[in-house]
Amino acid sequence: MAPTKLGFIGLSADGQWAANSHLPHIQKRPDLFRITALQNSSKASAEKAVQKYKLGGDVACYDDPESLARDPNVDMVVVSVKVPEHYRLIRPALDAKKDLFVEWPLAANVKEAEELTALAATQKVKNVVGLQARQNPSIRKAKEMVANGELGEILGTTMLGSGMVLGATEAPVYEYMAKIEHGANLITIPAGHAMDALCYVLGEMTELQAKLATRRPTMDIVDASGQVLRTVNKTAHDWMSVTGTLERGGGVATMVYQGGLSDTGKDFYWEINGTKGTLVLEGPNGHIQMFHPTIKFVPAGAGRAQLKEIPVEPASDFAYNVGKVWDAAMGEGDGGVVAFKDALLRHKMIDAIYRSNEKGTRESYL
Amino acid sequence: MAPTKLGFIGLSADGQWAANSHLPHIQKRPDLFRITALQNSSKASAEKAVQKYKLGGDVACYDDPESLARDPNVDMVVVSVKVPEHYRLIRPALDAKKDLFVEWPLAANVKEAEELTALAATQKVKNVVGLQARQNPSIRKAKEMVANGELGEILGTTMLGSGMVLGATEAPVYEYMAKIEHGANLITIPAGHAMDALCYVLGEMTELQAKLATRRPTMDIVDASGQVLRTVNKTAHDWMSVTGTLERGGGVATMVYQGGLSDTGKDFYWEINGTKGTLVLEGPNGHIQMFHPTIKFVPAGAGRAQLKEIPVEPASDFAYNVGKVWDAAMGEGDGGVVAFKDALLRHKMIDAIYRSNEKGTRESYL
Repeated sequence: MAPTKLGFIGLSADGQWAANSHLPHIQKRPDLFRITALQNSSKASAEKAVQKYKLGGDVACYDDPESLARDPNVDMVVVSVKVPEHYRLIRPALDAKKDLFVEWPLAANVKEAEELTALAATQKVKNVVGLQARQNPSIRKAKEMVANGELGEILGTTMLGSGMVLGATEAPVYEYMAKIEHGANLITIPAGHAMDALCYVLGEMTELQAKLATRRPTMDIVDASGQVLRTVNKTAHDWMSVTGTLERGGGVATMVYQGGLSDTGKDFYWEINGTKGTLVLEGPNGHIQMFHPTIKFVPAGAGRAQLKEIPVEPASDFAYNVGKVWDAAMGEGDGGVVAFKDALLRHKMIDAIYRSNEKGTRESYL
Repeated sequence: MAPTKLGFIGLSADGQWAANSHLPHIQKRPDLFRITALQNSSKASAEKAVQKYKLGGDVACYDDPESLARDPNVDMVVVSVKVPEHYRLIRPALDAKKDLFVEWPLAANVKEAEELTALAATQKVKNVVGLQARQNPSIRKAKEMVANGELGEILGTTMLGSGMVLGATEAPVYEYMAKIEHGANLITIPAGHAMDALCYVLGEMTELQAKLATRRPTMDIVDASGQVLRTVNKTAHDWMSVTGTLERGGGVATMVYQGGLSDTGKDFYWEINGTKGTLVLEGPNGHIQMFHPTIKFVPAGAGRAQLKEIPVEPASDFAYNVGKVWDAAMGEGDGGVVAFKDALLRHKMIDAIYRSNEKGTRESYL
């Protein structure tokens, strides 16, 4: 089979995420992928990226998503930019019946996500979303053990995380996260990936209740040396507490995510308690889609000394999980594709969290 | 001042709690206290306790609360028995205008607690409740640091606990806890004491939302060797997740309590996160009214390596906190008396938890 021809939106010469997470895997598998087109904010910027990453002189460079989408030499459009831009960039690709790989969150809100998911179904295009925590070896091991009944019946689960973003200060590149309407914040990104992992391992929630807060209504934007450049108003939340009921078995799931970094070693801590034993997943960062957590198991009643780490392949860099998503998108590996419809369900869960927070009620999203 | 003459209900020769927690302190301070009367289920049982604890031949022995309450040689009645008995034993003492020291929970439900609190006010008697986690040195230190602004503004707080009781199995002595109408269970006792400590340190909650579960609807009653004696139905809850909004500042408080003992080292873990720093209280057991937690502090942004234990006097045995309550009741120490009205507020909080769980709404209790 010929390699899939990728039209990449968001790979820039001075960017970091796309270059560090997508590019290494794509370039490792020339049998599967070929980047044939780039779209950036300007043609010059796209050309600069082609040169920097040595993509080859035949890569087409564009400054608008419509041209990229119309290029007959593009099979699949990759969207790796800020969330507020997603809808505007995805629509032309869907209209042109191109396959799509979009990073999570799929869109800035549930309404956009619904529209894009419906259109992807109508257009019958392959559609993939980067909810890549599901590809992490510890998360996959947890799912396997729960499914095999190694924990017995699930009693409950508790997850604590610190979201890195939206803490006391923020770098200029993340300033846009301060505005809730941009849809890229503590709830949607770090907590969103983590809640997706929770539901992947334990199943969805029949209902949930949530309390969100914006405890720091302003945010200092700082440069690399910590110098305050400006102070901006913040409407996005910096604290989330969600409690849900697991549809499989009825266990109680509690998730607490806070902005910034933890000073106490609780950047990511997740217990899954069952009648036969408990799993503990711990990691150095609340962005578990990027940072690998360890996984430990203790049989019920055995006591703390019996809490033993389970060896799994460590996903030691940012690119690991993303690479597995790419493999899955190409029908390789056992990961399974996370499609727009799966992302839509997660968007609906987040919408239920917002509704519950506002109204003080339990909300459903299934 | 002459020692206060105590009429003790619940001090039995084969009992443990009253003998281990109340008696040592009472006997250490003959200048403050004298036990002048005992009431047990039978006169013989009371006489046996008098002998065993060498209380003296002049201690009056009773088998009913009315006789103890009417004894002119009793100033204060002490109630240290199972919660379902409280109301029946407290009423006669109040009717006889005797001062009272009652263990937490004050009563089996909020209705009983309301009636007893109103009657104590009418009768103008001194009334003390053993919500003794407030006397723990680490809890008091946390309150002091929060009040002094050493944590800055409180962003949120998260508490995880395992309640020892209502786990996979239970000893015969605690079998009565299985029935929710008895009012002595995971929510009221271990979580109740812990939530009281949380509110003592951080203030009450303007509203809360709760999810409770009975994940093990039956419970094996086992003897000391672990042999199953019988299996009983359980209506009390074995999982609690509560999220509240702190009235001072609006931080988000999340508490998760589960039945049994933790196998993961999370029997008691409590973070209090502020803009200037974070406190971590950790203990070997979710019953923090009995088991002493350590207290550690880390300044904001300093990182895990800077999490330093704060030296406080260790409350190294069960009796320490109870002793401090006795001191406070006698106007000694700086602990302040926890009265029926304070216990009633905590009963109302627990009632709000039950209402929220049932209706799926946010509830107030202030």
